[in-house]
Amino acid sequence: MANWFSRKPRRTEAPRLRSRSEDQVTTKVDLVEFTPDIMSFLGRAAYVQLTQFENLSRAISSAPSTAAKTAIGRAAELSLSKHRMLVDEIAKDGGSAAEVMEPSTADVDRFERATHGADWFETLVTCYLTAGFLDDFFTRLAQGLPADPARRVADIYARESGEAVLAELLQTAIEENPRLASRLAMWGRRLVGDTMLVARSALLYGENHTSDEARIEPVFTELIAAHTRRMDALGLTA
Amino acid sequence: MANWFSRKPRRTEAPRLRSRSEDQVTTKVDLVEFTPDIMSFLGRAAYVQLTQFENLSRAISSAPSTAAKTAIGRAAELSLSKHRMLVDEIAKDGGSAAEVMEPSTADVDRFERATHGADWFETLVTCYLTAGFLDDFFTRLAQGLPADPARRVADIYARESGEAVLAELLQTAIEENPRLASRLAMWGRRLVGDTMLVARSALLYGENHTSDEARIEPVFTELIAAHTRRMDALGLTA
Repeated sequence: MANWFSRKPRRTEAPRLRSRSEDQVTTKVDLVEFTPDIMSFLGRAAYVQLTQFENLSRAISSAPSTAAKTAIGRAAELSLSKHRMLVDEIAKDGGSAAEVMEPSTADVDRFERATHGADWFETLVTCYLTAGFLDDFFTRLAQGLPADPARRVADIYARESGEAVLAELLQTAIEENPRLASRLAMWGRRLVGDTMLVARSALLYGENHTSDEARIEPVFTELIAAHTRRMDALGLTA
Repeated sequence: MANWFSRKPRRTEAPRLRSRSEDQVTTKVDLVEFTPDIMSFLGRAAYVQLTQFENLSRAISSAPSTAAKTAIGRAAELSLSKHRMLVDEIAKDGGSAAEVMEPSTADVDRFERATHGADWFETLVTCYLTAGFLDDFFTRLAQGLPADPARRVADIYARESGEAVLAELLQTAIEENPRLASRLAMWGRRLVGDTMLVARSALLYGENHTSDEARIEPVFTELIAAHTRRMDALGLTA
């Protein structure tokens, strides 16, 4: 089982039910046993990335300024190129991207509708927070793929993202209009549930759902800790 | 005046008021005397490219299949990267992209509204035809820029475009539903007027409007000939 991420020990902020000494060597919290077959993985990851791009393109269309359009354009370009690279992986393994993505469309489209946002600010928060969460999630899940694609997929997710650009736009918007903060904080909290749901739907559960849940939970604790840091970066209370 | 395009003689399909011998050496039909200052040029070119991307992203959102979404995604990525490179040129010359694009937003937004299209098929025809026309147009207009930026801008427009991808999607759609052909042909013809209008608004006219028009006309004749070939490629009568 490819687990080369373990070379990079992750710092863990959230309380967990294991000794600190384990943390110092490596994270034992991973999702490798829940990684589906490669085509299911790639299809879902590619379609989620496409949805992230669609959110960004809505944020471009509704942007209040040309400067914001151009800035988000950079994030959209990066997101689209990740989508294309995931699609290239599907083709490399002999799959048809459309067919391989199809089984994911219902879950992911439902997620997209639920996280649409009422205006540009909420859409932008969605782009910023759900992309961070889901890219993290798929990075972890990819560790359970065969070694070569695992490495290539990790490289795709390790590429530059639009996170900093989006954070900066949101920080500026909140500074200019501090009353936005409470509404966007609420929206940010609401996003967690739907984002976790669509992430979980990508997992391959075993026979014993209860023991699976117990093993999955620490990963989501870490992903939520990262989400909290993203909220913090905007000065929002998670 | 940079005119290095003249090294590549263009074939001319449309009738023009000059001798054939001229054509064999080089095209004399250019827009160099109508090229505005570099910031005006880049601002308009960058904003037009952003609008082209927005059209593509609408075509992705309304696409009838996941395969179409992914295919158009490639075109959108290429369009966004051209936009970014034009923005980089603005920054290279010490400009602020948003400020430099601002004077173009009214004209270009009007163009965008006029060419929206009633459904996915019309939007896709807009993407295919107006991008082709406007990229051609700005390529020609760029010849009047100072030599270095003229070369870099020409390189940007010479990069891969999504034209082939869009043509293929439209060809398939028309094959599957031949009744689309007459509606899309009509839409394609309607687009010419608005596209010419937004292109013309980028030109720097001199004192004598009538003689300017006479010099501009052959260029538009060529651009329309290329438009006709794009329609032909779909089996549509221009």
